[in-house]
Amino acid sequence: MIHSQLLADCHWLGRFEVCTVLLNRNAILPWFILVPDTELEDVLDLPSERLNQVTAECQRISGFLKQSLGYSKANFAGLGNVVPQMHLHIVARSSEDACWPQPVWGNLTETASYTPETLADWTAILVSEYGLEPSGHGH
Amino acid sequence: MIHSQLLADCHWLGRFEVCTVLLNRNAILPWFILVPDTELEDVLDLPSERLNQVTAECQRISGFLKQSLGYSKANFAGLGNVVPQMHLHIVARSSEDACWPQPVWGNLTETASYTPETLADWTAILVSEYGLEPSGHGH
Repeated sequence: MIHSQLLADCHWLGRFEVCTVLLNRNAILPWFILVPDTELEDVLDLPSERLNQVTAECQRISGFLKQSLGYSKANFAGLGNVVPQMHLHIVARSSEDACWPQPVWGNLTETASYTPETLADWTAILVSEYGLEPSGHGH
Repeated sequence: MIHSQLLADCHWLGRFEVCTVLLNRNAILPWFILVPDTELEDVLDLPSERLNQVTAECQRISGFLKQSLGYSKANFAGLGNVVPQMHLHIVARSSEDACWPQPVWGNLTETASYTPETLADWTAILVSEYGLEPSGHGH
């Protein structure tokens, strides 16, 4: 079960082995959210083997942002102060983006939407190069 | 070499095996910063074995915040938008703290200072229970 706030805020792209892969609907910058399969809330509370699996899946998204989209910087965080369900943010950043150098949380006033084409393109790359199992949900 | 801004902002408590352990001088909430030994800037760019070592050392700080200080929540992040040297934030949070539920970056207007006694007490626990090698720097 993915928290309703995450579902409202994000496109559901699919799954890796131990995380559900979401993409924030605000296309002003590429902002992925990975939701590990766990009842724990804080990422550093995961048993070490599971933590290593989760961070490896976060590295796939970072790789996509850098190698496939050409960004040189990725912010990484597990906060959960508002939505308690464990979720990890992997956010592409650049010195030209909408809230640089501030963190994205609470500092993004501009919004934009993804086109269906971009969602399909990114999902296709994540499937072919990063092992995403697509959702088929049409979210 | 630790970035001058981190040294200005933090007490230098010592080292784990692959990270230098800093504590933000603002005592309004417990905010640790771990600086891995690397020239890379983004934590998700670390080779997986080193990433696992770094996150394991972050877990020691999270353990200190939860088991030793009694907090139930820890925020975890690697950003580096302002200070490029890789550094990981591990921040104790509670619903009564100075900027809940906002992230700490840019949202802490109150400040406080650690007493030498608290710094000595926390360092002693980190040494005896979490494997800290103390700095002996007197920062």
